[in-house]
Amino acid sequence: MNYSDWSPKDVRKLIRDGKIDYHTSGMCSGYAQANLVILPYSDAYDFLLFTQRNPKSCPILEVGDVGSKIIKSMADGADVSRDIPKYRIYKKGILQKEVTDVSELWQEDFVYFLIGCSFSFESELLASDIPVRHIEENKNVPMFITNIDCVPAGKFHGKMVVSMRPIPSSLVAKASAVTAQMPRVHGSPIHVGNPEAIGIKDISKPDFGDSVTINDGEIPVFWCCGVTPQSVVMSSKPEIAVTHAPGHMFITDVKNTSLKY
Amino acid sequence: MNYSDWSPKDVRKLIRDGKIDYHTSGMCSGYAQANLVILPYSDAYDFLLFTQRNPKSCPILEVGDVGSKIIKSMADGADVSRDIPKYRIYKKGILQKEVTDVSELWQEDFVYFLIGCSFSFESELLASDIPVRHIEENKNVPMFITNIDCVPAGKFHGKMVVSMRPIPSSLVAKASAVTAQMPRVHGSPIHVGNPEAIGIKDISKPDFGDSVTINDGEIPVFWCCGVTPQSVVMSSKPEIAVTHAPGHMFITDVKNTSLKY
Repeated sequence: MNYSDWSPKDVRKLIRDGKIDYHTSGMCSGYAQANLVILPYSDAYDFLLFTQRNPKSCPILEVGDVGSKIIKSMADGADVSRDIPKYRIYKKGILQKEVTDVSELWQEDFVYFLIGCSFSFESELLASDIPVRHIEENKNVPMFITNIDCVPAGKFHGKMVVSMRPIPSSLVAKASAVTAQMPRVHGSPIHVGNPEAIGIKDISKPDFGDSVTINDGEIPVFWCCGVTPQSVVMSSKPEIAVTHAPGHMFITDVKNTSLKY
Repeated sequence: MNYSDWSPKDVRKLIRDGKIDYHTSGMCSGYAQANLVILPYSDAYDFLLFTQRNPKSCPILEVGDVGSKIIKSMADGADVSRDIPKYRIYKKGILQKEVTDVSELWQEDFVYFLIGCSFSFESELLASDIPVRHIEENKNVPMFITNIDCVPAGKFHGKMVVSMRPIPSSLVAKASAVTAQMPRVHGSPIHVGNPEAIGIKDISKPDFGDSVTINDGEIPVFWCCGVTPQSVVMSSKPEIAVTHAPGHMFITDVKNTSLKY
């Protein structure tokens, strides 16, 4: 079954009914997908401040009211506790289990954060005739832990994680310009070329995801990555945290193009 | 004395020493000036969330750590409790007094918020040969309370306040493009023409500031205004709040041009 031309609302209904419990890549073509972090209110101020201080790593799309499961601006009336195919539950930073519904364990003090995802700008790169290598090679994007410290906020601190896409030298400026228009999904690159300068020793050995081909005449271009907020949250060991499972995103009602600046 | 070509650091020293206690308009040409809101930590989450949900009205430049008076990213080591010429102290939303130093009444739970100011984009409009009428007429910018509800967050809610600049029809697109590059100082206009549509009954009678001339062939263009966060905070009646006095801004070490996107 291919859900690429389905509406977000219809796919979310299948997810809620338990009929889709796998990754959302390629579903609802043209619509933004989002990362999820849920924290208790006691950790929410520090995390919200962390996102404010690190907007390229943690571009917030929506923050729920305390205790509310209902999404307002990114999807009309969706339920953040049921409308994602797979969730991960962490206690003190340790993964406890994966589940397809967190409505039963919802707490009155839970606050959800929807965070922009680079899926949105990749579709814009492709629309601008800029190649996206890991899509060409049917792989996951290569991701690296850098030596760049995020700006800390309260209990949250850690190194910035970046994704890498090899871009032909002639298209680096265009790729920068296209993504600069989309600050809500990480925006422009954080670094171009010189992997060593940001602590990456071997560009062929990513810390997460897959290694991709870098052709002659291509420059590795680095963007901030949605793995940063998740890894920062986990390493700070909050009492409880809920996230989406990797690749199992929240599908919004908002078009990628409407996230342009 | 004209401080237009002085460095921010030197002018802040005079302010701290009590030698400047008047408005900062025209000082340290080219450097961004900022609005100030200080709240106790108990109100900080709701206010930070309000700014996140209303980024055009409340573009955050920096948020302090709880209890910290020291500014980090916007000015190296400045003291937010002493380096502003005049402060206003509010209790339960009612102005108590104006002072030139709040270091004595600083509370361990105070959190400061520096918020972008339209001074920064006005210098860019002028540099792009776009006229700014209230500067030409040596007046304060006209400001209006609209019928647009801000997105509420916790205890904070209220109507959006906008500033108005009349722009020749041929330059409206350019004025939009120039300010769109500066989202940290309110960004692009929120509304162009048709004052009635946002609840403004008489364009010659601003709610704050002065009325300015609108010539034939000019369109009233409306930008989000830094008065919004202050008025929203005051109307929510927090136990205590400290702000700058109008026109008595915090002068940062950051150039207006570096606030461009």
